[in-house]
Amino acid sequence: MPASPIRRLVPFADQAKQQGVRVYHLNIGQPDLETPPAFWNALRNLDMKVLAYCPSEGYLSYRKKFAEYYNRLGISVGPEHFLITEGASEALSFAMMACINEGDEIIIPEPMYANYIGFARAGDIKVVPVSTSIVDGFALPSIHSFEEKITSSTRAILICNPNNPTGYLYTREELEVLRSLCLKHNLFLFVDEVYREFIYGGREHISALTLADMDEHVVVFDSVSKRFSACGARIGALVSRNKALYQAVLKFAQARLSPPSLGQLAGESLFDLDESYYRSIIAEYQQRRDLMVSRLKAMEGVTCPNPGGAFYAVASLPVKNADHFCRWMLESFRHEGSTVMMAPGPGFYASPGAGSSEVRLAYVLNTADLGKAMDCLEAGLIAYQSVQ
Amino acid sequence: MPASPIRRLVPFADQAKQQGVRVYHLNIGQPDLETPPAFWNALRNLDMKVLAYCPSEGYLSYRKKFAEYYNRLGISVGPEHFLITEGASEALSFAMMACINEGDEIIIPEPMYANYIGFARAGDIKVVPVSTSIVDGFALPSIHSFEEKITSSTRAILICNPNNPTGYLYTREELEVLRSLCLKHNLFLFVDEVYREFIYGGREHISALTLADMDEHVVVFDSVSKRFSACGARIGALVSRNKALYQAVLKFAQARLSPPSLGQLAGESLFDLDESYYRSIIAEYQQRRDLMVSRLKAMEGVTCPNPGGAFYAVASLPVKNADHFCRWMLESFRHEGSTVMMAPGPGFYASPGAGSSEVRLAYVLNTADLGKAMDCLEAGLIAYQSVQ
Repeated sequence: MPASPIRRLVPFADQAKQQGVRVYHLNIGQPDLETPPAFWNALRNLDMKVLAYCPSEGYLSYRKKFAEYYNRLGISVGPEHFLITEGASEALSFAMMACINEGDEIIIPEPMYANYIGFARAGDIKVVPVSTSIVDGFALPSIHSFEEKITSSTRAILICNPNNPTGYLYTREELEVLRSLCLKHNLFLFVDEVYREFIYGGREHISALTLADMDEHVVVFDSVSKRFSACGARIGALVSRNKALYQAVLKFAQARLSPPSLGQLAGESLFDLDESYYRSIIAEYQQRRDLMVSRLKAMEGVTCPNPGGAFYAVASLPVKNADHFCRWMLESFRHEGSTVMMAPGPGFYASPGAGSSEVRLAYVLNTADLGKAMDCLEAGLIAYQSVQ
Repeated sequence: MPASPIRRLVPFADQAKQQGVRVYHLNIGQPDLETPPAFWNALRNLDMKVLAYCPSEGYLSYRKKFAEYYNRLGISVGPEHFLITEGASEALSFAMMACINEGDEIIIPEPMYANYIGFARAGDIKVVPVSTSIVDGFALPSIHSFEEKITSSTRAILICNPNNPTGYLYTREELEVLRSLCLKHNLFLFVDEVYREFIYGGREHISALTLADMDEHVVVFDSVSKRFSACGARIGALVSRNKALYQAVLKFAQARLSPPSLGQLAGESLFDLDESYYRSIIAEYQQRRDLMVSRLKAMEGVTCPNPGGAFYAVASLPVKNADHFCRWMLESFRHEGSTVMMAPGPGFYASPGAGSSEVRLAYVLNTADLGKAMDCLEAGLIAYQSVQ
């Protein structure tokens, strides 16, 4: 496995920090918001003697709470459809291994979450990208773009909705297109919905689990990491009504014994949080998005579609080589004692050479810091013109 | 992946419980001892706001504590040699994927921990068993037995010391044999040392990390699960001084982002437990071992070598088909309203047909319950003679 473009930047960020430089981290989806107090309280009040293995599929009580939360969103599933994993990462790996043979193919719109490529590679699965473009705001391409990629080796289509890295929120029409493709060609529809709650401007999130006649096809990936700012709990889930698939994934889950117990035990309480919790975090992120995107759009030569969800945006910058620019920012550029760390675009593309002018920015800083990060980026872009 | 023989028994155990039968679980290595209060106290006193991702290799503070514990055991390693994983399971998977190509081979003495076979299969790695025999107390076979299995595709030898399922404790001479083999044929020596502290009769555990000139070859797997009765924490470790190997494993660790944070945050405290903690758990398990093994040896037709460590024993029973016997005990046999669940021997062998008269018994019950379980097993064996 090669190091990811973000990982390659880490030593340069560390070096900058050692020099006393303030590094604004827009490079990673680690929310800065507090994990809800209910989580810490539940942890403090645990009354256990032995921290035992939990069932390989996760605690039933936890899966019940998870299902109730889905039910409140209008998604009819039960605890038997949930398999608790070590973050959504493990759920994705398991689904790929259980559903796709070595050498077979999975179609993923690009830019895509970089780790999808890593999970596929670990299982010797071929990632077939379908290009989306910043010019179209990263909307799903036409059904023909997909059909021309489908071969006898294609087993699944994977999307992230709302999208990491683009923030794109898929419309009902787009999901229906994917539905018809999966039914016609008998493909799995894998949908990463970990950012489901982060939707802006009053738009609606359509879960793939609500698509008609797709029980055998749909696998949804979920996690508490982003929703509850609890990345370190490492609690994700695979959700599917396909019983044979569930049993196949369960075999992999049994091989690694069990998912972490503590994150589930403390995390149950989080599903009881009411609307006001979600409203407050969404309001916070929307404010950040509005600030960041308006600042980016005002910069010379920068394009940035307004993301409908998640907490990322992909921007096109007036640079030829985003890898170089991101490294240069960390190594050589300082603005009022600070610099900005971003994720270079090429890491989100399976197609060689794509995304070379793009970066992903995660708006996981408060608006004051985000404003300063934008000042810094703007100054950096100007200074970089004489470098490249 | 086929279901393991233990897993296939679970529905029968569940059914027995639903009938009000008391099932003595000797089938799984889930210690019944309490997780030390220090763990729960540390959890209660956590003072965090955001449960963030930890570094992919684990918290530095945790790895420092882990290294100090090794140093106290006379093993000279530093925090930079530890990579924290989701249980030892993940460490084993990562090591196999990083060190052994698809189609290449790993030699493992059998009987072996059943999941080794699963981890290898997931990476398309061929498990080449070297037979050990209950007649020899499961001692390491001669160097020739290994050499005749070594091919140009062999990459590693894996042992578990002390052993799961046999409880066998490897001697210094045996480890030297493995050392010379690995040096001669340039193989990795993978050693699962999760039961390192569970050594009986005053014998010494020799860590593979103390073998001379083996820095590039040795990879040790460790976990807090058994040592601190904290299976649900899902905190394991890979330990190696081989820098290239560490970097290769780190790539896999980065792909899954990070190991669970909570188990590390609370678990740091456990490395401060003093000798008295270890003395008390070892005394407890030794008492159980002595009881169980002496009871087994007194049963007609039963053979059971006295295990030197861990908390398992493999016994040969006067039955032709241990899979059938174990299922029959759960389905059809009751002794004073109870029955016993054991792990059938064939699941611990890669060689088809091997271990058909054997079972693994984990002595993870208090002596009173263990005695009742032995009464039940003894009566069951007698009754079974008219069935098989």
